Amino acid sequence: MSGVPTSTSRFDKRRARTRAALIEAAQGLLVEGRLGVPIREVTERADVGIGTFYNHFASKDELFAAAIESALSQWAESLDAVDDGTTDPAALFARSFRLTGRLHRLEPQISRVLLSQGHALSQSPDGMGPRARRDIRAAQEAGRFLDMDLDRAMVVVTGAMIELGHLLHERPGLDEAETVDGVTSDVLVALGLERAEAERLCAEPLPSIDATAGLG
Amino acid sequence: MSGVPTSTSRFDKRRARTRAALIEAAQGLLVEGRLGVPIREVTERADVGIGTFYNHFASKDELFAAAIESALSQWAESLDAVDDGTTDPAALFARSFRLTGRLHRLEPQISRVLLSQGHALSQSPDGMGPRARRDIRAAQEAGRFLDMDLDRAMVVVTGAMIELGHLLHERPGLDEAETVDGVTSDVLVALGLERAEAERLCAEPLPSIDATAGLG
Repeated sequence: MSGVPTSTSRFDKRRARTRAALIEAAQGLLVEGRLGVPIREVTERADVGIGTFYNHFASKDELFAAAIESALSQWAESLDAVDDGTTDPAALFARSFRLTGRLHRLEPQISRVLLSQGHALSQSPDGMGPRARRDIRAAQEAGRFLDMDLDRAMVVVTGAMIELGHLLHERPGLDEAETVDGVTSDVLVALGLERAEAERLCAEPLPSIDATAGLG
Repeated sequence: MSGVPTSTSRFDKRRARTRAALIEAAQGLLVEGRLGVPIREVTERADVGIGTFYNHFASKDELFAAAIESALSQWAESLDAVDDGTTDPAALFARSFRLTGRLHRLEPQISRVLLSQGHALSQSPDGMGPRARRDIRAAQEAGRFLDMDLDRAMVVVTGAMIELGHLLHERPGLDEAETVDGVTSDVLVALGLERAEAERLCAEPLPSIDATAGLG
């Protein structure tokens, strides 16, 4: 039996590498807006056999969903890695919302796939949802946000982020920064900040961040 | 040429009757949760020939979407018809949001189809969207809500209504009235009311309204 764990582990590693290669290929296709390619082209790009695909994903849609989820998780990690000296949890939440809102136009293809998954993605354990909850909870504990049920808080936060994306796509003439920051201040007020304080936070300079970090 | 308008009009009327019969049949199936029935069963229920179906709808999905849209439009008219003496536009908006939020559990099947259409439905010219805009505008003009771009206002309103539906379905143990009224007050605050005022409006008694008005 002693050889089994090693062999299993080697198998698991190879399996994980194949999955990661497929996800990376899908992310590249997303960035290029080429969602219609045949699965064969995905596996060729990932340099894996076409038969391998179905060991990992039931369909191309499932692969693209996993690719988006992975990209969002990397985006969330990039947000966490920003260190501009902000310690106020309300300001941290505001910064993340403002930066994420700007992703809709920076990465329109990814945004559209994200919006097509909408609510389901917001439930992903590795995505933005849990991080938003963590930041809201911290701001509540610091007395900055109103102490409300987190699920209730997330109704406005998630809903506004999704609808903001639709609006930015539907009205390309709309000023992105003004719109994103306006909606962010509405969300902050809904969470418990005073309007003037919310607007102050939304006027703070934003750190630069690599929007495509990890996106293939 | 004089006969043509009459004949066209008679044709149009028959066509409209057939369409209405198909939509009514679909609304009945929605209420019963029977979305999987074959098209033949829809046309039998509507008492029209099966060949007629495709003169009106490209697919069953398209019929169900039209059925939902029509139901929502009737719901919006029911909301407009409530006359409990409320004249404050902020209070009118609050009442509509609270009543509509309660539809998710009152009509779960319709709510789920609505949520699956999500944002697209909110854009319908006959649905809830234009009425929400009208009420928000009136409250802005009365100085009750903050004077902001209506599209921006609708980001929080539409987003919150959709996510509220998801939450109520995902957590059946959640108290519906408390959750809906809590989210409504968050939305009101985002639109510009003070928190205490928003909570006061959300504690007002609600008029009874026939939730299934017009739903088959």
